[in-house]
Amino acid sequence: MNIRLRWLRDKLNALNIQGMIVSNPLSIKYLTNIDAEGELLITRKENVFITDGRYIEEVNTSLTIDDGVVVYDRRNMMKEDYENYFIFCETVGFEEGYVTFEKYKYMKQLYRVNDLVETEHIIEKQRVIKDDDEIKNIKKACELTDKCFSHIIRYIKKGMTEKQIANEIERYFKQNGADGLAFDTIVASGENSSKPHSSVTNRRIMPGDVILLDFGCKYNGYCSDMTRTVFMNKVPERVKQVYDLVLRNQENFIKEVKENANIKTLTKMIENDFRIYEYDLIHALGHGVGMEVHELPFLSSKKDNMLKENMVIAVEPGIYIPGKFGVRIEDTILVTKNGCIKLNNSEKNYIIIS
Amino acid sequence: MNIRLRWLRDKLNALNIQGMIVSNPLSIKYLTNIDAEGELLITRKENVFITDGRYIEEVNTSLTIDDGVVVYDRRNMMKEDYENYFIFCETVGFEEGYVTFEKYKYMKQLYRVNDLVETEHIIEKQRVIKDDDEIKNIKKACELTDKCFSHIIRYIKKGMTEKQIANEIERYFKQNGADGLAFDTIVASGENSSKPHSSVTNRRIMPGDVILLDFGCKYNGYCSDMTRTVFMNKVPERVKQVYDLVLRNQENFIKEVKENANIKTLTKMIENDFRIYEYDLIHALGHGVGMEVHELPFLSSKKDNMLKENMVIAVEPGIYIPGKFGVRIEDTILVTKNGCIKLNNSEKNYIIIS
Repeated sequence: MNIRLRWLRDKLNALNIQGMIVSNPLSIKYLTNIDAEGELLITRKENVFITDGRYIEEVNTSLTIDDGVVVYDRRNMMKEDYENYFIFCETVGFEEGYVTFEKYKYMKQLYRVNDLVETEHIIEKQRVIKDDDEIKNIKKACELTDKCFSHIIRYIKKGMTEKQIANEIERYFKQNGADGLAFDTIVASGENSSKPHSSVTNRRIMPGDVILLDFGCKYNGYCSDMTRTVFMNKVPERVKQVYDLVLRNQENFIKEVKENANIKTLTKMIENDFRIYEYDLIHALGHGVGMEVHELPFLSSKKDNMLKENMVIAVEPGIYIPGKFGVRIEDTILVTKNGCIKLNNSEKNYIIIS
Repeated sequence: MNIRLRWLRDKLNALNIQGMIVSNPLSIKYLTNIDAEGELLITRKENVFITDGRYIEEVNTSLTIDDGVVVYDRRNMMKEDYENYFIFCETVGFEEGYVTFEKYKYMKQLYRVNDLVETEHIIEKQRVIKDDDEIKNIKKACELTDKCFSHIIRYIKKGMTEKQIANEIERYFKQNGADGLAFDTIVASGENSSKPHSSVTNRRIMPGDVILLDFGCKYNGYCSDMTRTVFMNKVPERVKQVYDLVLRNQENFIKEVKENANIKTLTKMIENDFRIYEYDLIHALGHGVGMEVHELPFLSSKKDNMLKENMVIAVEPGIYIPGKFGVRIEDTILVTKNGCIKLNNSEKNYIIIS
């Protein structure tokens, strides 16, 4: 059995849970490398993946003996087969953060489980600490993102639309080895930058524009996430103060990152500094990055969590002046014992495009 | 209040439900045109959208007076505000097919609702019947898909990879007015076509290849979905029988479509004809198409549903010979009183690329 499945079995054992239904495709991929619709059952006897006709061939070719997973085709299964999997289990875990209420009721009945219990994101929590291969993939995704940024600041010209720029970012990623985008690219120019989650529009870039670029790619299933705020022709005076404040705080936070640093304290530090200048941090400060672009840990002043070695996090403070402009600066970094390693290395001082 | 919100209120009234928490972003978009994270509450007094700092500006500019929706910013809300929304409601509905088990428990506590009840997909069921604007958008998406197909069969050349072809489909859609893809494009060549949900690989197109193209775009938020199976240089003899069988059945099905036609009976007809030649229909025959590329109604021989005027459905029979090849043919059609209107009109006889 592979190391991650073994870990899960040990963990369930410790929690006195006798079986588990794993439903989230990311959890299934993490545990088995299977990339298909279906359900993974951790039963007393074996690890079972139940899928349907569309995926059987694919799944059978992607599994290795080492995984220790038996594959079943739904078409050949009877009502009793489902009922037998957990027959001697007192409690069976499920993923309450993924499974809908409807599905929960369905599973309870299908597998005849009396005590289907919440597992409090055990798999997501395990994913927080990255192994060497995962770090390698995220690093590669971040390198591609830096390269894409170098390319895109030379590509942007006055009169281009936000959409054109977003399309070029996507084209660049795909042609340079990425699986695809990690999330929908944000290109927010001028007053659009004041909306933290602006969608990409047909607005054309004009002189004096702030251009907020929030983008990332996937490499081997792992994400990158970076934001830069750049300027067309010149840096407007009124933006400078805000830009400097955001940048100083982003860098101060990164300086403090290391194993056992307290997320709440560090985030409060930024909130307080913003408040001195009468600005608010209106979104979370950041998040973990891995198979998902937003995953645990969430960086906010509401949760009292510690950073741990080999977490990968994105740090993205921003300030938004409604109807006018916004500034956000974001890097993806790897937490180490005594500090951190920046996985993005693009310039953060004023970048003026002409 | 807009017509869709009024419909929902009447419907809830008829079900003796006094309020509802609408969580699915598609439901929220359908009911209010709001395209942002947040929750829509149908309370006794008013319709409320609760969102956070990131979206306030956007939401306020997209709503009209006619919508009758009041927007609140989570940051300014207290515990008591949440508890007051449903204070005089005996039962409050929620979307059990969207809300996770974890979120269900959280909402129950946050809004202090004793009886949070399932609403059995009322909004999705309403979305099944399309209005004129929706039909116009889907039609436009289908026209773009036909045009993209004409383009792509001239574009494909021997030696190209599946990825190149998929990227070109995406580029074409985006440059010709689509919002983006309706789903991840499938380009499955040679033996890859035998996996109904093959991902796109770096396999290169070779003479004699079957090339299965399953693709669609979004236009104004509405989807198209089409599949064609084409041939590189020649149609292999062993594929012809399968192709003809799939095509004949797809066309026979479409001929029988009209208001009140029985989905189960029509699907059984195809399954039976396939079985005569010892093939199985290993996936659903089709599905509704609208804001989602897969939505209600699902076409299968297991459900005894009737087709209704102004449903839009995709019909996609397929046969797959493991490790060898697969054939699938799919069109998106509009159900009418006495028949149907094909929204895709690309050629379905053998298409040979050279």
